[in-house]
Amino acid sequence: MRVRLDVAYDGTDFRGWARQPGHRTVQAELEQALATVGRLPAVTVSVAGRTDAGVHATGQVVHADLPELPLLRALNGVLSRDVRVRALTVVPPAFDARFSATGRAYEYRTTDAVPDPLRRHDTVAWPRALDADLMTTAARALVGEHDFAAYCRRREGATTVRGLRRLETVRQGAVLTTYAEADAFCHSMVRALLGALLAVGDGRRPVGWPAAVLSRGVRDPRVTVAAAHGLTLVRVDYPEGEAALLARQRESRRVRVAGTVVGPPT
Amino acid sequence: MRVRLDVAYDGTDFRGWARQPGHRTVQAELEQALATVGRLPAVTVSVAGRTDAGVHATGQVVHADLPELPLLRALNGVLSRDVRVRALTVVPPAFDARFSATGRAYEYRTTDAVPDPLRRHDTVAWPRALDADLMTTAARALVGEHDFAAYCRRREGATTVRGLRRLETVRQGAVLTTYAEADAFCHSMVRALLGALLAVGDGRRPVGWPAAVLSRGVRDPRVTVAAAHGLTLVRVDYPEGEAALLARQRESRRVRVAGTVVGPPT
Repeated sequence: MRVRLDVAYDGTDFRGWARQPGHRTVQAELEQALATVGRLPAVTVSVAGRTDAGVHATGQVVHADLPELPLLRALNGVLSRDVRVRALTVVPPAFDARFSATGRAYEYRTTDAVPDPLRRHDTVAWPRALDADLMTTAARALVGEHDFAAYCRRREGATTVRGLRRLETVRQGAVLTTYAEADAFCHSMVRALLGALLAVGDGRRPVGWPAAVLSRGVRDPRVTVAAAHGLTLVRVDYPEGEAALLARQRESRRVRVAGTVVGPPT
Repeated sequence: MRVRLDVAYDGTDFRGWARQPGHRTVQAELEQALATVGRLPAVTVSVAGRTDAGVHATGQVVHADLPELPLLRALNGVLSRDVRVRALTVVPPAFDARFSATGRAYEYRTTDAVPDPLRRHDTVAWPRALDADLMTTAARALVGEHDFAAYCRRREGATTVRGLRRLETVRQGAVLTTYAEADAFCHSMVRALLGALLAVGDGRRPVGWPAAVLSRGVRDPRVTVAAAHGLTLVRVDYPEGEAALLARQRESRRVRVAGTVVGPPT
């Protein structure tokens, strides 16, 4: 049976999502726990958002094909406390955590005041005052379907066209949260966008600069990729119903076969 | 000059506030940092709320008598990242962090769902479903000026009369926050109150039980002191103006001289 796992993790002590020999990763931790609880020799999971080292998740989605549904309590009993499975659901085979997804939502937290020590693991301390409204104005020019090559790490034969649905920064007290939503993000895209927006927010760059970088279509070395620990994957969207799940999966895979990958978001 | 320090800390890796030889404590960390930045042989600070091991603070207040005002940035540069000084203010000598305080506010966080790994340091995972409304109904009977001997750790010659101004539990999604405010709390009082309320919230005790325990005036071994890491000191209140600060300080000290200590809250 195909099982959907809704997963949350504190990325601080992980070398990111993807399995890497000799490193502690969320994928390896989760696969090992599923194997232990199911008394299976090995389990492989597929993920919606392949997060980088230090990036967190409250709403990560994963699927695995298993002989039976594990008990949630048993699974969390085996996992380290910095990873939790929030829900386990039997889904139709048409559900693919990565290819059926229609959207990913991330949040990026910064503070320009003395940081709260209790949130130091998921909030980046910014040394200069930030203007959230300026950041949102700059961000608005990036929303829509564009070639985000200027904000992506290049991969051979992979498209860098993405549909950015939301990018805005909201201040609540001393904390600025930037909301980023797209069909998918390419590698390091959210953090590169944040790097450009933070340069606007603290007054080092004019408000039109992030859009100017986008339109040049090549990475600009003046864009600093923002620190990983401010970023959290908060939600993954899927269509309703088996037919729609399958249609979306086919479309995503077709784009990939055509040499234009809907790549793993970060 | 007398300096007020507004302090926040993640209590996870501290053996509480108060200096103890051989242990890492917030007081020792802060006094050492003040001595280092001020090039002083030693500094002693006074605190509003002497928190226990594992308890956090976002709004702790401290005072120290110093030859000059330290630079906030220098002080935070010397401190570990799990303690931050949020503000440094020169105050009149009538200001005493402990004795001038008129109120202390704490928050206690629990969750009855799978916990968010990013908040595992300040949120207690409760294994049974909790009813916030039942907890608030039970709490309402405790609000007011009472002898809280049943919820205090006894100290020779110390009063256990306290004015509890607010005690209520509010659910937001899967997280229940209990707000506790009083003129002062005696040692382990907030956590003992929470222990009684959680027993009501998960259905193990009737709603009138916490008030019945209070009225008996002695500790009830069936009240479990709730885990420290759910508790955060969020605010300390002071009166406005020098005269009021001094009057409050004298009153607090007089109560203590009379053998009825307005003790260190926890």
